[in-house]
Amino acid sequence: MELLYETLAAELSESIARGVLRPGDRLPSVRLLARQRKVSVATVLQAYLRLENEGLIEVRPQSGHYVRPRRALELAEPRTSRRAHTPAKVQVSTGVAALVASMRDPSVVPLGSALLSPDLLPTGALNRMLAGIAREMSSAGATYESGPGLLTLRRQLARRSVTWGMSLGADDFVTTNGAVEALHLALRAVARPGDAIAVESPTYFGVLQLIEELGLKAVEVPTHPRTGVDLEELEQVIRTTASLKAVLVMPTVSNPLGTVMSDEAKQQLVRLVAKYDLDLIEDDAYGELVFDSPRPRPARAWDREGRVLFCGSISKTLAPGYRVGWIAPGRHQERIEQLKFAFTVASPTLPQMAVAEFLASGGYDRHLRRLRATLRGQVDRVREAIADSFPAGTRVTAPAGGFVLWVELPQGADALELQSRALARGIAIAPGQIFSARGRFAHCLRLSCGFPWSARIEAAITTVGELATVQLSRRRTA
Amino acid sequence: MELLYETLAAELSESIARGVLRPGDRLPSVRLLARQRKVSVATVLQAYLRLENEGLIEVRPQSGHYVRPRRALELAEPRTSRRAHTPAKVQVSTGVAALVASMRDPSVVPLGSALLSPDLLPTGALNRMLAGIAREMSSAGATYESGPGLLTLRRQLARRSVTWGMSLGADDFVTTNGAVEALHLALRAVARPGDAIAVESPTYFGVLQLIEELGLKAVEVPTHPRTGVDLEELEQVIRTTASLKAVLVMPTVSNPLGTVMSDEAKQQLVRLVAKYDLDLIEDDAYGELVFDSPRPRPARAWDREGRVLFCGSISKTLAPGYRVGWIAPGRHQERIEQLKFAFTVASPTLPQMAVAEFLASGGYDRHLRRLRATLRGQVDRVREAIADSFPAGTRVTAPAGGFVLWVELPQGADALELQSRALARGIAIAPGQIFSARGRFAHCLRLSCGFPWSARIEAAITTVGELATVQLSRRRTA
Repeated sequence: MELLYETLAAELSESIARGVLRPGDRLPSVRLLARQRKVSVATVLQAYLRLENEGLIEVRPQSGHYVRPRRALELAEPRTSRRAHTPAKVQVSTGVAALVASMRDPSVVPLGSALLSPDLLPTGALNRMLAGIAREMSSAGATYESGPGLLTLRRQLARRSVTWGMSLGADDFVTTNGAVEALHLALRAVARPGDAIAVESPTYFGVLQLIEELGLKAVEVPTHPRTGVDLEELEQVIRTTASLKAVLVMPTVSNPLGTVMSDEAKQQLVRLVAKYDLDLIEDDAYGELVFDSPRPRPARAWDREGRVLFCGSISKTLAPGYRVGWIAPGRHQERIEQLKFAFTVASPTLPQMAVAEFLASGGYDRHLRRLRATLRGQVDRVREAIADSFPAGTRVTAPAGGFVLWVELPQGADALELQSRALARGIAIAPGQIFSARGRFAHCLRLSCGFPWSARIEAAITTVGELATVQLSRRRTA
Repeated sequence: MELLYETLAAELSESIARGVLRPGDRLPSVRLLARQRKVSVATVLQAYLRLENEGLIEVRPQSGHYVRPRRALELAEPRTSRRAHTPAKVQVSTGVAALVASMRDPSVVPLGSALLSPDLLPTGALNRMLAGIAREMSSAGATYESGPGLLTLRRQLARRSVTWGMSLGADDFVTTNGAVEALHLALRAVARPGDAIAVESPTYFGVLQLIEELGLKAVEVPTHPRTGVDLEELEQVIRTTASLKAVLVMPTVSNPLGTVMSDEAKQQLVRLVAKYDLDLIEDDAYGELVFDSPRPRPARAWDREGRVLFCGSISKTLAPGYRVGWIAPGRHQERIEQLKFAFTVASPTLPQMAVAEFLASGGYDRHLRRLRATLRGQVDRVREAIADSFPAGTRVTAPAGGFVLWVELPQGADALELQSRALARGIAIAPGQIFSARGRFAHCLRLSCGFPWSARIEAAITTVGELATVQLSRRRTA
């Protein structure tokens, strides 16, 4: 149930996002708003406090509450990545190790991994559902839920697919251990060792790791931070790469760029894939986290030939530790079921049951609305802090959803070195190099905004900015 | 808590197993035994009923209870498999499909998959623990349990490793999605596409599927149903196969043969692997199901160099649908953690927590004692039925543990055809061909004894025997 102050905060936050309330505007006084809305003063205070924590407003002593000025508006966005059309063998595993290790250390400020604060997730409600199921169904888990996976979960996914703007059936899904297993099986179904896969540039390091381990090659296609993968460049890559078997992209909130491709671009992408008889692996892990609602349709919505292997999970919205994901593999359904059996036999039964019940309960959309508003606020707050403390010339994305920022430092910066210097100060960041099969993006880094704004996070961003400034000036004098 | 009648039944069952009570012996009358043991008549009746259900004793009207005559004693054991030293590309996936599909159909008599009846598993108790944890720990599952996996579970595994006859630490384990994921990661850690792996012959089709999918080759080593893989033959294979990187075996209760290698053979195997600088992947999925206690030590117990990647799970003892397994990867620890992250990121948190609590609770060993006695009875019962109804000349294993039988029909039988004929009659069996990379064992099949003896199962075995007899006579006249 949404509390009164939450409703109020969400409304105000939307007014700010829409520009109804603009940077520098004074908000109504607490008393006035309480009278207008017929709520208590305490409720308005709580709503203002939340907006303050989300970085949307600030208190000016003796004066009142104001929409924060947006220094981040002056930040330029990163440039489209450059060409590198020849397929590259991938080797990012080593660079990822430090990032993964830092994930498990609670004393490290978590700007590295794309993890949400547990406080933002309804894991408590999900766990209560799991508890109820486990108590009532004494033989749940006594057998393998093999084949396509738990039917009740697949039914809920089918129901949900309507809100995604398409209409899949329960039989169109196979449940997996998170989206990463879905991507693994998808890559296996469409390519053999030595084949090439076209990917966004930069792209999620998990995809590059899988490509590396499977003996595939990655072709990085120039990608614009706001419009997504360049479709003309992609067509050229397709024409010139005989071993190319598939395109793997995140059309609805990419990682790390936060891009949402337009409906037209998605359609064009699906047509392109069909024209050259390829497959499209669509990673929708962040699809539910588009800031503006309703969420745009996935590319899969325009697929008439079963060429799009649509992958998703609840890891970025409900509970990463449940490891519940799915794939709608289109024409590869049978092969994906076979691969799922060969590699992990089945997914655990009870977590699937709990997620199915959560999806059926109807609380998911309310939770998503709240989560998106919160994340938008957190992302804005981090952008502001970057504008305040990073070296002049820094560029940063203005993502359309999700909770990561892609930061382009001035040329000469070395993000891998920056990572180890930041880690020595107890701060995790993700260096740009791991988002490329060729070790590009040495002057870039990804910052996660998954945790509520706090003095600790503000100080950490300031520190990273200072470290970058020092690094650049040292290099210039060297 | 073990009930009085269960204790009594277990004692009698052991007396029968040890030959203290022999086939044809009359058991004490119900009244006499009740007086002797100072228990009620109802308790003795219940104990006798259980032994009857397990096929250990039978009622002769007007006469009393007798230890069943053992026609199965006349059955010969299958022969050692023959040589086929050249590495073979594997292709079993197609043959497995029918087996997997039948797993999910409750109307099919389950003699195919190595699944236990839910009635034999303490899934209810496990689920209650899961419920308690999920209710109390509202943020469990809100983050990835990445790296080696849940510490409390690894601590319990370390504690348990002492009862296995070795002493591993919590840091020696990585938790996985069942033993199959453990085997996948192990194969990846020790070999690259094109490399060869030595396996028992016959061997578990899941292993052959993984070898096939990973682009590896399998070398089948002659294996005796009672003593296990032939170590002289194995050494010759090692000497003559330059691409050989590892040996993958199930030294303690193999699938499908039910073999337990002697301590000496295990030591020799570990020495052999060290001598030729190879790795040993030890699949211990059935290790806790050795009929005689205490269970023998795994090969890993003799490993001083970290060459043995020890894989196990709770799928054959507690709850297959929990998907909780592990690997103790020895010198490959770091690489296995990295692979685990790349392929499934982490295992689900809550199922790991529940299994850790179950292992800590102390009920596991009591459950295993009971389960082993029950399985021994079920296996004996199925052997008897085979002796009754299969064609003359049929050979069958006398497994030292587990719950599957390997049946060698007279030459000329075709188990794949038999599988489809049996399936048409609503009976699943596992055809011999899927236990070989080369499609050998066409005249063999595996029968699972995971379900309590019943008229339905008896009828199904009789039917399979008849189908085999008909098939053989048709072929002889053709």
